[in-house]
Amino acid sequence: MAVQTVASNTDTAASPTLAASPVDLGPAAALSCRECGHRVPLGPVFACEECFGPLEIAYDFSTYDTEELRARIEAGPANIWRYAPLLPVPADVADKPNINPGWTKLVKADNLARELGVTGGLYVKDDSGNPTHSFKDRVVAQAIEAARAFGFTTLSCSSTGNLAGAVGAAAARAGFRSCVFIPHDLEQGKVVMAAVYGGELVGIEGNYDDVNRFCSELIGDPAGEGWGFVNVNLRPYYAEGSKTLAYEVCEQLGWRLPDQIVVPIASGSQLTKIDKGLQELIRLGLVEDKPYKIFGAQAEGCSPVSTAYKAGHDVVRPQKPDTIAKSLAIGNPADGPYVLDIARRTGGAVEDVTDEQVVEAIKLLARTEGIFAETAGGVTVGVTKKLIEDGVLDPSLTTVVLNTGDGLKTLDAVAGTGLSATIRPNLDSFREAGLA
Amino acid sequence: MAVQTVASNTDTAASPTLAASPVDLGPAAALSCRECGHRVPLGPVFACEECFGPLEIAYDFSTYDTEELRARIEAGPANIWRYAPLLPVPADVADKPNINPGWTKLVKADNLARELGVTGGLYVKDDSGNPTHSFKDRVVAQAIEAARAFGFTTLSCSSTGNLAGAVGAAAARAGFRSCVFIPHDLEQGKVVMAAVYGGELVGIEGNYDDVNRFCSELIGDPAGEGWGFVNVNLRPYYAEGSKTLAYEVCEQLGWRLPDQIVVPIASGSQLTKIDKGLQELIRLGLVEDKPYKIFGAQAEGCSPVSTAYKAGHDVVRPQKPDTIAKSLAIGNPADGPYVLDIARRTGGAVEDVTDEQVVEAIKLLARTEGIFAETAGGVTVGVTKKLIEDGVLDPSLTTVVLNTGDGLKTLDAVAGTGLSATIRPNLDSFREAGLA
Repeated sequence: MAVQTVASNTDTAASPTLAASPVDLGPAAALSCRECGHRVPLGPVFACEECFGPLEIAYDFSTYDTEELRARIEAGPANIWRYAPLLPVPADVADKPNINPGWTKLVKADNLARELGVTGGLYVKDDSGNPTHSFKDRVVAQAIEAARAFGFTTLSCSSTGNLAGAVGAAAARAGFRSCVFIPHDLEQGKVVMAAVYGGELVGIEGNYDDVNRFCSELIGDPAGEGWGFVNVNLRPYYAEGSKTLAYEVCEQLGWRLPDQIVVPIASGSQLTKIDKGLQELIRLGLVEDKPYKIFGAQAEGCSPVSTAYKAGHDVVRPQKPDTIAKSLAIGNPADGPYVLDIARRTGGAVEDVTDEQVVEAIKLLARTEGIFAETAGGVTVGVTKKLIEDGVLDPSLTTVVLNTGDGLKTLDAVAGTGLSATIRPNLDSFREAGLA
Repeated sequence: MAVQTVASNTDTAASPTLAASPVDLGPAAALSCRECGHRVPLGPVFACEECFGPLEIAYDFSTYDTEELRARIEAGPANIWRYAPLLPVPADVADKPNINPGWTKLVKADNLARELGVTGGLYVKDDSGNPTHSFKDRVVAQAIEAARAFGFTTLSCSSTGNLAGAVGAAAARAGFRSCVFIPHDLEQGKVVMAAVYGGELVGIEGNYDDVNRFCSELIGDPAGEGWGFVNVNLRPYYAEGSKTLAYEVCEQLGWRLPDQIVVPIASGSQLTKIDKGLQELIRLGLVEDKPYKIFGAQAEGCSPVSTAYKAGHDVVRPQKPDTIAKSLAIGNPADGPYVLDIARRTGGAVEDVTDEQVVEAIKLLARTEGIFAETAGGVTVGVTKKLIEDGVLDPSLTTVVLNTGDGLKTLDAVAGTGLSATIRPNLDSFREAGLA
């Protein structure tokens, strides 16, 4: 089917294909504009025809009984599909071929808590445990199900890292062709990680902005017919995957909201969906309603949201990124204003740390908890430390810090780490080195 | 406490420290020699004083009721500690700080099955989902608990890769000092992965054999007092971690034995413990007793066991390893004779594949199932393919293939993988490349 823009605000589907075969995406009832509330039927569209605002999934949860739902979730599989009743996926999603991410460890980080002076319980939600070792598996898994429902046969995205691997792997498992676009001069290691799954991996002569522009062009062209771009025309579905981080944290805390949660900001989508997930759990009665604070974390070299937050602005001024935290390096974050709103509404904050602090934080987390985080995890841990030192984050409250990726993918950041000693293979040399 | 050799065959402990505080390692009752059956109390010893055979854990499972045990396991945590009643660990192990590996995905590999012509159900047990992305987390987690019980304060090992990371991470979380010995000229990437956890990482001027010899010297010296070498003086405990692979496979199959299982061979310990684990499940009544076949997989460049198997020998002649499957490159595998025995007894086989076939198999698994395996996973998948083609492995039976590590750690093996096309950022260039 062709990619389309929304052409109707009635309850009939937006294209003949959709009208002919109604889409079964479980509790997903429609798409709704975050800005003006305009509703359209489920389809591969992402911007409101009325106001160009972002479209989100609107659900029908009205039939759920709280305790039945809780029991159903707890009896579900050890992956995100345990939350299928709350996601835009068919009820039998767990039986379909997919990468099945999620249900990653919520690590009680007692050693790190001691170092940071947190007394109320500190937890690291470690998403490096996902199949391709980043949280992107969660969102891509959703996009796959939407792509299936809409009859797409090719899965695509623009990427410089984690997303390329997640799309390649999920497409391979789920039986889609994949075609991932990257800047042609990416480091060889990243190219290998993206290419190994056997899909098309196309280098674009240009930078990441050129890659993105090209993808937008392709979506509007007949050549892109049948293509699902996970973070463009499938974005409303894709983005919902981040809600599962909120669900898992609460269930793993014993169906309890955390008091404080520290979330990295790239486009800002993840933070807004975590807030959405927490609100849903409250509305559904799965957790007790109580205040929680959401904190956003950026690298100083790409800190458009924290800059706006500190200046008291409602709008976010774009920046040209220059940071080692490349997976967060979005200079013009689409959901920036929503992030500002959520941080202020919940009593949180948005903060940033230098690249040096990112590296220190990666090492701190590894040394205290044995978790080797990607630079994005260094950003959240570093920001947590800074917020505690500044008296912004309350160390007496239950705090959850997200690690969204794996240190093996950003080895360069800690390349300076090395041998503590070199000795000859005998005991005298060992003793001389003072290691006994 | 000092590292010791076994000095007693009575029921009293082998050292004053052990006598003073009896060791609580749950159902572990004693150490028993695999060769002569000689029993000694639990302690940090690994070789029989009577015959120099390897010591193994002897359990007391006599009090278990099958259905109570099954229910207890199923209600346990989503990690190896669900099997605490069957492991040499205290009953409250899940509450202690540890890296908590296991309960990794058993992936129903339908796409790979189609390519290989397997009709009886093909599964990949994907241990890249462990905390440091290899099965070594399972064995190190056991060693940590033994180290705790014996009062050790430093955790150590010799390593060239996966084990260094697993020890570094687990020691950090569990509050042990760690001191890992590696050849001083290891690739920088591997050094970084091992060093990031902040323990001592000592380069030895020499090759891996020199490192091992030095470690043996250190164990017998006062300088090594209080040191637990996970794969030397803690080896009987450490090795038991591999049993959990067998437990998980059976539970994930619905408490059912697989018909065939393909296991990589380095020292051979993993294969022998998987057999031990399956036998225990049968004896405990947790699975129905029926025949199963265990197949061993090696790389041609380090194939001492498959060479012996094919020649019909009972003993294994050492080889000098030369293969890209470095995590399996043990030229003189300690458990080689036991592996031969198990393969023959169960009706399995031992086979090897070339480095080229290893790379092909890594790509095959990635392309079909979205799983990016370490070279060791390429070995098992490649051997599975070969055994099917040769009519040795029966494609109509339920077959499980182990992937014990992560492709991100052996990127060099697939370094040739790259872009399928490079284009200019416009639709004409896209069409010219034939990608539409």
